[in-house]
Amino acid sequence: MNQDYVKPDNWSIIEEGFDVERVKSSESLFSIGNGAMGQRANFEEMYSGPTFQGSYIAGVYYPDKTRVGWWKNGYPEYFAKVLNAPNWIGINVEIGGEKLDLFKCKSVTNFRRELNMKEGWYQRSFNVVLTNGIEVSVKSTRFLSLDLDEVGAIKYEVTPISQDVEVVFTPYLDAGITNEDTNWDDKFWDTYDLAHKGNTAHILSKTMKTDFHACTGMLNQIFLDEKATDIYPKVEISNTCVKLNYTLEVPKGKTATVVKFGGYTVSLNHKEEDLVTASSAVLKQASESGFEALLDLQKNAWSKIWEMADIAIDGDVKAQQGIRFNIFQLNQTYLGKDARLNIGPKGFTGEKYGGSTYWDTEAYCIPFYMATKDQVVARNLLTYRYQHLEKAIENAEKLGFTNGAALYPMVTMNGEECHNEWEITFEEIHRNGAMTFAIYNYHRYTGDYSYIPEKGLEVMIGIARFWHQRATFSTDKDKYVILGVTGPNEYENNINNNWYTNYLAKWCIEYCIENITKVKEEYSNDYKRIIEKTKLGEEEINAMAQVAEKMYFPYSEKHQVYLQQDGFLDKELITVADLDKSQRPINQKWSWDRILRSPYIKQADVLQGFYMFEDKFTSEELGRHFDFYEPFTVHESSLSPCVHSIQAAALDRMDQAYTFYLRTSRLDLDDYNKEVEEGLHITSMAGTWMSIVEGFGGLRIKNDRLSFSPKIPKEWKGYTFNVNFRNQILKVNVSQEGTSFNLEGNQELIIYVDGKEINISPDTLITI
Amino acid sequence: MNQDYVKPDNWSIIEEGFDVERVKSSESLFSIGNGAMGQRANFEEMYSGPTFQGSYIAGVYYPDKTRVGWWKNGYPEYFAKVLNAPNWIGINVEIGGEKLDLFKCKSVTNFRRELNMKEGWYQRSFNVVLTNGIEVSVKSTRFLSLDLDEVGAIKYEVTPISQDVEVVFTPYLDAGITNEDTNWDDKFWDTYDLAHKGNTAHILSKTMKTDFHACTGMLNQIFLDEKATDIYPKVEISNTCVKLNYTLEVPKGKTATVVKFGGYTVSLNHKEEDLVTASSAVLKQASESGFEALLDLQKNAWSKIWEMADIAIDGDVKAQQGIRFNIFQLNQTYLGKDARLNIGPKGFTGEKYGGSTYWDTEAYCIPFYMATKDQVVARNLLTYRYQHLEKAIENAEKLGFTNGAALYPMVTMNGEECHNEWEITFEEIHRNGAMTFAIYNYHRYTGDYSYIPEKGLEVMIGIARFWHQRATFSTDKDKYVILGVTGPNEYENNINNNWYTNYLAKWCIEYCIENITKVKEEYSNDYKRIIEKTKLGEEEINAMAQVAEKMYFPYSEKHQVYLQQDGFLDKELITVADLDKSQRPINQKWSWDRILRSPYIKQADVLQGFYMFEDKFTSEELGRHFDFYEPFTVHESSLSPCVHSIQAAALDRMDQAYTFYLRTSRLDLDDYNKEVEEGLHITSMAGTWMSIVEGFGGLRIKNDRLSFSPKIPKEWKGYTFNVNFRNQILKVNVSQEGTSFNLEGNQELIIYVDGKEINISPDTLITI
Repeated sequence: MNQDYVKPDNWSIIEEGFDVERVKSSESLFSIGNGAMGQRANFEEMYSGPTFQGSYIAGVYYPDKTRVGWWKNGYPEYFAKVLNAPNWIGINVEIGGEKLDLFKCKSVTNFRRELNMKEGWYQRSFNVVLTNGIEVSVKSTRFLSLDLDEVGAIKYEVTPISQDVEVVFTPYLDAGITNEDTNWDDKFWDTYDLAHKGNTAHILSKTMKTDFHACTGMLNQIFLDEKATDIYPKVEISNTCVKLNYTLEVPKGKTATVVKFGGYTVSLNHKEEDLVTASSAVLKQASESGFEALLDLQKNAWSKIWEMADIAIDGDVKAQQGIRFNIFQLNQTYLGKDARLNIGPKGFTGEKYGGSTYWDTEAYCIPFYMATKDQVVARNLLTYRYQHLEKAIENAEKLGFTNGAALYPMVTMNGEECHNEWEITFEEIHRNGAMTFAIYNYHRYTGDYSYIPEKGLEVMIGIARFWHQRATFSTDKDKYVILGVTGPNEYENNINNNWYTNYLAKWCIEYCIENITKVKEEYSNDYKRIIEKTKLGEEEINAMAQVAEKMYFPYSEKHQVYLQQDGFLDKELITVADLDKSQRPINQKWSWDRILRSPYIKQADVLQGFYMFEDKFTSEELGRHFDFYEPFTVHESSLSPCVHSIQAAALDRMDQAYTFYLRTSRLDLDDYNKEVEEGLHITSMAGTWMSIVEGFGGLRIKNDRLSFSPKIPKEWKGYTFNVNFRNQILKVNVSQEGTSFNLEGNQELIIYVDGKEINISPDTLITI
Repeated sequence: MNQDYVKPDNWSIIEEGFDVERVKSSESLFSIGNGAMGQRANFEEMYSGPTFQGSYIAGVYYPDKTRVGWWKNGYPEYFAKVLNAPNWIGINVEIGGEKLDLFKCKSVTNFRRELNMKEGWYQRSFNVVLTNGIEVSVKSTRFLSLDLDEVGAIKYEVTPISQDVEVVFTPYLDAGITNEDTNWDDKFWDTYDLAHKGNTAHILSKTMKTDFHACTGMLNQIFLDEKATDIYPKVEISNTCVKLNYTLEVPKGKTATVVKFGGYTVSLNHKEEDLVTASSAVLKQASESGFEALLDLQKNAWSKIWEMADIAIDGDVKAQQGIRFNIFQLNQTYLGKDARLNIGPKGFTGEKYGGSTYWDTEAYCIPFYMATKDQVVARNLLTYRYQHLEKAIENAEKLGFTNGAALYPMVTMNGEECHNEWEITFEEIHRNGAMTFAIYNYHRYTGDYSYIPEKGLEVMIGIARFWHQRATFSTDKDKYVILGVTGPNEYENNINNNWYTNYLAKWCIEYCIENITKVKEEYSNDYKRIIEKTKLGEEEINAMAQVAEKMYFPYSEKHQVYLQQDGFLDKELITVADLDKSQRPINQKWSWDRILRSPYIKQADVLQGFYMFEDKFTSEELGRHFDFYEPFTVHESSLSPCVHSIQAAALDRMDQAYTFYLRTSRLDLDDYNKEVEEGLHITSMAGTWMSIVEGFGGLRIKNDRLSFSPKIPKEWKGYTFNVNFRNQILKVNVSQEGTSFNLEGNQELIIYVDGKEINISPDTLITI
């Protein structure tokens, strides 16, 4: 069943009513994060029902030993796993001698969760009758601070309804946690110090093997009837857990409150010996501000994010809620401050998928971050890959490539490969092209060329070398071919001449050579350094150029389309429309061989290439390829519909564009794939943003300028979005009547609208 | 390093000198088996050095939970694993208060092992000086009885050399054993009863999940100076182990002997409640005969096997030893008495590879068993697959096939699939064709058609249905294609139109239809039963015929050869000769993607088809295909060289044929692949037999008659082999001078020699 229990609301995610079956799903949906850490919406108090506990620290991982059925040469020995971190949110609550546990109490009423996306906080409230007959109302509010990103804050309030009661709050820290996802039931954390002082406590622990040290800390404030108390806690310490007990006599109708500040300081950001001091300092700073003041800062910080990133939709609350949820989650996951971090496919909402970084970042997320943040953020994302270049070269060496050829991993945390299916790890090599494309895309959008001589060209050379070595010459075809690959459509494995891969390979080599020339001419110092480092010579460049020039592309004269791969036309070309619905999703219903020999496309493949290189094809060509491939596309990847949506819009097929848009925007909120309990689909959320801005809004970069072809689904009254373009913010408002632009900046901007040049002056509304 | 320490000998495998590094390899090489059970050459006495313990019972397996990195629909949940069974051979020995342990003693001299293949026994002898300074000589002789196939016998003799000593023999049974190969460290055996009585003891245990019950029993006889003693043992019993201690005062120069009869009775062959009685009875029978008499029976039984199966080579001791080792091991593994059993790739010599049955049986082993045993043996091997037909249909259903289509598993014990790599499990479907081919081959050789109406046709129909459904129609080619397969050459995965697979599919359908017609006309009762059971109708038959008729075969006009698969000519066609030796074996040096896009062939593929259907092609065609494919074949499967050897001989290239022959005949004896410690390559041993009989001897069946084209490697003086053909034994002797035939039988036989008809009368030597 789809879980569509979320109440429609423009700015909040709201759940009403308590259902144990929904707990794990809601734990994902109501997750909070601040780019540095994240927290699933687990209850603070004890819960003995089914739950999936998750606290995550950005950049902290564990190299779990690889598990495969049959080992193949080249597989990574270990791969980085997202780690469940020590629990800092726990607050056990005892009421009249009975432990509060929503799974075991007599009744729960008025249960409500709200994730306020506008202001960046999460609240849960309910009335509960315990088995001892006592009734209380509970309200818990929490957030992870954007300002102090090592701190989370919880305000947990209990108000007796039926009678005066004794309430015992036991805020605790617990490092005795486990991962749901572990290959060998390894223990991931080693705890080596627990201490407390007054209302504070901390635990020092480190990850096994990777030796990340973390100080998990807490500082509690206790209030009775909104007045601070000075009760001193009782302390319980075990091997991995420290608990502080506060006992309060609470009159009926009055409220007992614990405010708990907690969080992590980690050795990624501090010296190991300073972790405790740093933790104490930041918790002290938070507590001195107080919960409410810190929350005000939070609201303010989120308001600034929304100013740049919001998309407002008029006339469709569910669509509005959907797009804001996506934008909110992307910002909870990655804020671009730290080039060591990246955008995990589940963000801070679950453990599934080892590693944090896929080609999703380069192909889908960078456009979002470029347009909604300062351009340093996208540059940080590029730098992340630059920092992994050595590892990418090692990775290619494992597969037999030489001479500085680089193959970026399919999935990674620290630059090492985290995946181990040969058809993906060794063959889904198109990912390498996305790295070069992202550099190109960054330059095209920001106009900042400096990244290329400084860092980008080295990456491009490693990648061009890879393609040069990976292509082989077919005497039979008198062309270079690329054999044995998996394209973006992962429902084909080990195929020959995947059009997308071949096209990207050719383009990567050509773009690299073009930039070698430019850097040689215009940045001679950088050029010297790069040539010295890479040992790139004329002969190699010429050989590369030769591969690009003579690259083979499968093409059907009959259909006048590029073929997804050699032999595509040998398939039984039955369209998705003619496929019995009981057979879908095919990845759940069919064995792998059946999927492979079918014509069905998991995710845009040839069309992905048309999306990335739209300028190289006519609109008529796009239409023909769209008509050929769309009928076979099952969109069983969350990354697929956005590309089709953008192309349908470009082809003026707005109904279709809107249908594709709907498939992604509420994917998690309505739990289409019945798996939201495992976590959210973070990276595909950027695709939803693209569907609106690039699809409906028609945003492109043409001749160094912004270009729009605004369209609007007939279901909407209007929508607005903002674009940060070279340090000026352009606000775009599209309605059924027309489009208006408003520039926040200080210099005139020339844009194209439907191909026509428009001059926009700062702070002047222009309507078309 | 190759381990070529085995001494050349015509009839025995001999090792001299003790080397701890060789212990595990020798444990494999000196393994014994009697078709019902098997035993690695582990020491009877305690050994604390590196060892791989293995006792095996035919047909007893454990369904280990499947382990894969990423699950695919259709994988088997569990797969059958070869099980290490309770230890019955153990005899701890204490000499002068010190435990005998060759890993810890002061010195070992005159260490010698002999596996006497002519007579079917294994002996180990040595002199040892213990750390207490005492020197003794030890000799242990053991065999697994062919006559009483639930019994093994050991004669273990200790003779003090330096002084009189106290010797304590502790023969024991131990069910507390483990498997080297287990996915989840599961416990495989549950022991529920241990008992002793006088000189006998037994353990009852059962396998977890599969519930095979086994009674492991022993009966000991103690001798001093060759005289039976009546000392009564002390008994030690633990949870899984029962030990009997015998203490003897042995004068210098005299011999203390324990004769231990042991073995298994299992619930496959007895009622569960009768296991102990059956065990006691058979051990009593053995002990009443006595060790020597039982050994005489053993020699006699092996002599009968050799009478039919021996190949004698004159002028090359190592070749002689090699081929006899192969024939010996095949007979130790499978004797054809029980249609529930099959020929495991490691026989009873190791645990590697789950399951016992591969297409090796049908493609390589059946010819050996047909020619060297009564024809009921080959029929039993066919019946094994008939008994698994229901499971093969279920297996096909898991992959989406319907209506009684059958897909035999890649690897199996009980009919269920035991493998879990999608490119093998789901795609190496050519195995299915081998089942039909074996039926055809059996009929061709034995002339016994009765198997087809009784059992074979049902199997053929299930298989033909599979091919019918598995082929798809390519509008582009106007032909039926078979997409996404792995051929016999496993260095190509998920390829389209593997010539061998397509050819076999077409042939299976045609041969099935041919037999439907024949059975309809000649066996109307069987026909009725089969049609009723299979619900096969005219329409389906016609549709099948259509697929066969319009099957596509990739062909190169330029090279005038069938292509191994679509796109083969796109590869960089660098021959093995031009491949740097440091790159080989490629399966150890290269990552999987590199292997896949290379032209290198692991094992005969197109040529395998030419081998099976030789009659359908001219010698000129064979030569052309051989010349095209052989240069790309790396023979990294032990099953490959035999086919090339046979074809080289057919093409009169005897030097090449001999080179290929050498690659297999001593594969294990000389440990080419440095892995003999894991067990022997049993099934490929049948290929070595084929290389001589079908290759050098040129044996074929033509027009219902035996046909020969005898050739001889120039390195040999002569060779002889025997062929059981339709209940008469033809002895063939090939020398550099000519070939002679001698028929043991009672009716005249017409054979072809080099195409000419020859009449052979019984017991008349004919020389050509």
